[in-house]
Amino acid sequence: AQETSVTVYGRAHVSFESLKASGTKTKQVLNNNTSRIGFRGEEALGNGLKAFFQIESGVKLDDGGSGGSNALAGRESFVGLKSNFGSIKAGNFYHPYDDLHSISGNYFQLFTGTSNDATLWANGSTAATGGFDQRLPNAVSYESPTFGGLSAKLWYSFGPTSGSQEQLGSNGARAISANVLYANGPLKAAWGHLQQRRMQTHSASFYEDGFSNFITVGYQIGPVYLAALVERDKLKNINQSGNDRTRNYGHLLAKYTTGAHTVGAFYGKAYDWKGSAGRDDSGARMYTVGYNYALSKRTQVYTLYTNLKNQDAGAYVLGGSPVRAAGALADWATASEKQSGIVLGMAHNF
Amino acid sequence: AQETSVTVYGRAHVSFESLKASGTKTKQVLNNNTSRIGFRGEEALGNGLKAFFQIESGVKLDDGGSGGSNALAGRESFVGLKSNFGSIKAGNFYHPYDDLHSISGNYFQLFTGTSNDATLWANGSTAATGGFDQRLPNAVSYESPTFGGLSAKLWYSFGPTSGSQEQLGSNGARAISANVLYANGPLKAAWGHLQQRRMQTHSASFYEDGFSNFITVGYQIGPVYLAALVERDKLKNINQSGNDRTRNYGHLLAKYTTGAHTVGAFYGKAYDWKGSAGRDDSGARMYTVGYNYALSKRTQVYTLYTNLKNQDAGAYVLGGSPVRAAGALADWATASEKQSGIVLGMAHNF
Amino acid sequence: AQETSVTVYGRAHVSFESLKASGTKTKQVLNNNTSRIGFRGEEALGNGLKAFFQIESGVKLDDGGSGGSNALAGRESFVGLKSNFGSIKAGNFYHPYDDLHSISGNYFQLFTGTSNDATLWANGSTAATGGFDQRLPNAVSYESPTFGGLSAKLWYSFGPTSGSQEQLGSNGARAISANVLYANGPLKAAWGHLQQRRMQTHSASFYEDGFSNFITVGYQIGPVYLAALVERDKLKNINQSGNDRTRNYGHLLAKYTTGAHTVGAFYGKAYDWKGSAGRDDSGARMYTVGYNYALSKRTQVYTLYTNLKNQDAGAYVLGGSPVRAAGALADWATASEKQSGIVLGMAHNF
Repeated sequence: AQETSVTVYGRAHVSFESLKASGTKTKQVLNNNTSRIGFRGEEALGNGLKAFFQIESGVKLDDGGSGGSNALAGRESFVGLKSNFGSIKAGNFYHPYDDLHSISGNYFQLFTGTSNDATLWANGSTAATGGFDQRLPNAVSYESPTFGGLSAKLWYSFGPTSGSQEQLGSNGARAISANVLYANGPLKAAWGHLQQRRMQTHSASFYEDGFSNFITVGYQIGPVYLAALVERDKLKNINQSGNDRTRNYGHLLAKYTTGAHTVGAFYGKAYDWKGSAGRDDSGARMYTVGYNYALSKRTQVYTLYTNLKNQDAGAYVLGGSPVRAAGALADWATASEKQSGIVLGMAHNF
Repeated sequence: AQETSVTVYGRAHVSFESLKASGTKTKQVLNNNTSRIGFRGEEALGNGLKAFFQIESGVKLDDGGSGGSNALAGRESFVGLKSNFGSIKAGNFYHPYDDLHSISGNYFQLFTGTSNDATLWANGSTAATGGFDQRLPNAVSYESPTFGGLSAKLWYSFGPTSGSQEQLGSNGARAISANVLYANGPLKAAWGHLQQRRMQTHSASFYEDGFSNFITVGYQIGPVYLAALVERDKLKNINQSGNDRTRNYGHLLAKYTTGAHTVGAFYGKAYDWKGSAGRDDSGARMYTVGYNYALSKRTQVYTLYTNLKNQDAGAYVLGGSPVRAAGALADWATASEKQSGIVLGMAHNF
Repeated sequence: AQETSVTVYGRAHVSFESLKASGTKTKQVLNNNTSRIGFRGEEALGNGLKAFFQIESGVKLDDGGSGGSNALAGRESFVGLKSNFGSIKAGNFYHPYDDLHSISGNYFQLFTGTSNDATLWANGSTAATGGFDQRLPNAVSYESPTFGGLSAKLWYSFGPTSGSQEQLGSNGARAISANVLYANGPLKAAWGHLQQRRMQTHSASFYEDGFSNFITVGYQIGPVYLAALVERDKLKNINQSGNDRTRNYGHLLAKYTTGAHTVGAFYGKAYDWKGSAGRDDSGARMYTVGYNYALSKRTQVYTLYTNLKNQDAGAYVLGGSPVRAAGALADWATASEKQSGIVLGMAHNF
């Protein structure tokens, strides 16, 4: 236990937000945006082999609240081995599907908070409502080395262990994810894949199996960066009704950087859910425009305006968690038709 | 994320206590006294501007209990910027009112535990019973630079976010605090101010608005330090009854230091609550005498005797939380008339 | 608060396990095995006196779950003083009884997880079911210096503070533990003692008083290490019925180390509970065989097979918590008669 073997790192990120939803008054809040603290290290074992670990915890810098990702090891945490042949690790961490977020995602608020592209992308972050953007426990993964800009990741989660359906002998939920990434000079292109299987072993109100695939591309032209994503999601045997639901989604990103200044715009559109459990006018669109100023490589301030508009039957919510509650996948709660936020934030990496 | 950018600091503080309350037997306990661990750092941004952060968590060294201030970031936690023009920060931290605690407070047990002056000062630490000495979330503050010994702080809290009244569109509770401090050579003098507004948006059983003001002075004469505080508290529209309540409070502190030895005495007196929601004989007095021995600058052991005596209708409790429960502000629970403790403790700062 | 005064240390330990229990299907899981992160330091105070502290928290590396030993300071946490005359400390930590675990314990999985010898040793880790192998809060201890290989520890716990019976004035549960250790060259021999008193002040369904004593011996002969333990447990006045229960237990350990390779075998046997609250055929036996490979001094991988067989009325469970629930000490839940696990794990100390 040498002191120098552990690096303490993290991010302190808060924002002041003025939020508005149709039918209600404006609200002013101070928000924490996935602030975190982590501990990591690696050990050379000889012959190019290394052991590594990371223990990362969210911290609610606004109110000290605990639980979920704000518990010890509530964020990306794992232990593993790596060599010239790639790396293997095991723990509690996001899938390769999520690891591609940065290519075309809504970067203003560091992929979190009100402007979070997970508002529409991946159908949000709650498995119970069919979302694909969540950290899953009991995971193992393999990450390939990079050959000429090409790399791949494969990931498997044994699913949550606390659910009543996960007792010894049952067939629990499982998730599989993979990606392939090509990054060379100004170009990034990637495919992301996630499937969530046997979700009804957790709750009959879940869908049976869920599949999400996307392709995303980004290109840097001098000070300008342009990127796009197209995605298709499918949820099968919803609430054991035998009915399925399929959705298309896409987004565009543009940003311009000069010195410490970056301005950018993001536009995303979710189309109606189709199929036997589909619903007309269940789509939405969101856009964000913003300005980031880098006080240093580690510290930035920013301001942004983000705006979400649901169709008549749309139920998306700014920040990433659809209103549709667990156990109500076939129904649709009423979300505010229009939601918007003006945000002023600061993020400090350490 | 350079390792050297983060400092790990904290305090390990436990005490053995023999407690006595009138009408019950004696109790022997091992107590944790706000032990904590924290991580902080700052980054120079050029032109005298600096970014800084702190993430501080309480640790229950006696039993490993979690929650509240013992969660990650459960204690003073924030991120901010500072320059020659002062500092601004945002997060979860105490108000300027509390920051003056050390001028005339009951220092023996490091302003915590059984001898805590918050037993009477600020009417305790529970907002629901009208106390003013609590850490409040979602806060922002400005701290001025010091001009000839004079400095000031201004602080605003958007209030808790988890209460049912804090949904989008409601007018939630808010708190405002300020202080002005003059510290020059042997003299310290300060004014502390706190107001808690719209508390009934959290619970109808809360008071509507609460105000607390105090003036405190301390003076060092060679090895002797003398200090005093006078305070006035007001709670308005208690339980939506339209009735108000006002209280005066004061305390005196004297200590004598020679080498590693410090002996001291503290005396505090809370007068009756007056006004339409007042109550006769609701006052109390407490005193503490003690001895602290500094094993080093970072480590000390101490022993103390503390004694609280409530009047017939007094409901104060050693340690800082009045017995009067939330929702019972107009009523008065019965606290033990006399309470006392003999304490032997050790505190190690790291 | 100098940065260099605090050492960050810990362990990341996960295993893949294929588990089998009679009457149910096989289960494959990824398990966390008491991964932890800690902060510790010491300060020289002059004349050989030192202050020291440790704050240790479990981390659920598999799913980020919190609570219990996985809260801040949920594991071995204390502050104390040490000199040539020994050390005293106070906090939340294991007793001297447990500190002898490593002499003859089931080392494969680092004394945790499926192969944990606490499956049978000390009757498991849950006080409510009469187990003796738990961390107890509010503890103080004295550890002697070593004289010619001989040392001793004495420990006292004021018991949990959150139980309803622990209010001011009640006579709460208390625990006392001691050990004597002789370690000289190839030989280790020790006596461990633990008594848990007045447990019915926590719950009438607890036993009144519990006693456990064991003797354990280990001897290194070149690459071979042989060790054994014999233990006797007694639980008195079970469920306030006036009836007692007594059990014998013993185990054997053998391991062979060459270079980075260690192979070993463990065999433990719990005999029937005797006495007026005894039960025929309530015994069990377990064995483990395994192989550990040291990638470095800090990092190892291992594989093992462990197997538990209960007699007809046996209720032991792999991993250390008997099935007998709190409040049901006089009854016996049905555990799976046979349980086994094949485990592949990795542990990285930092």
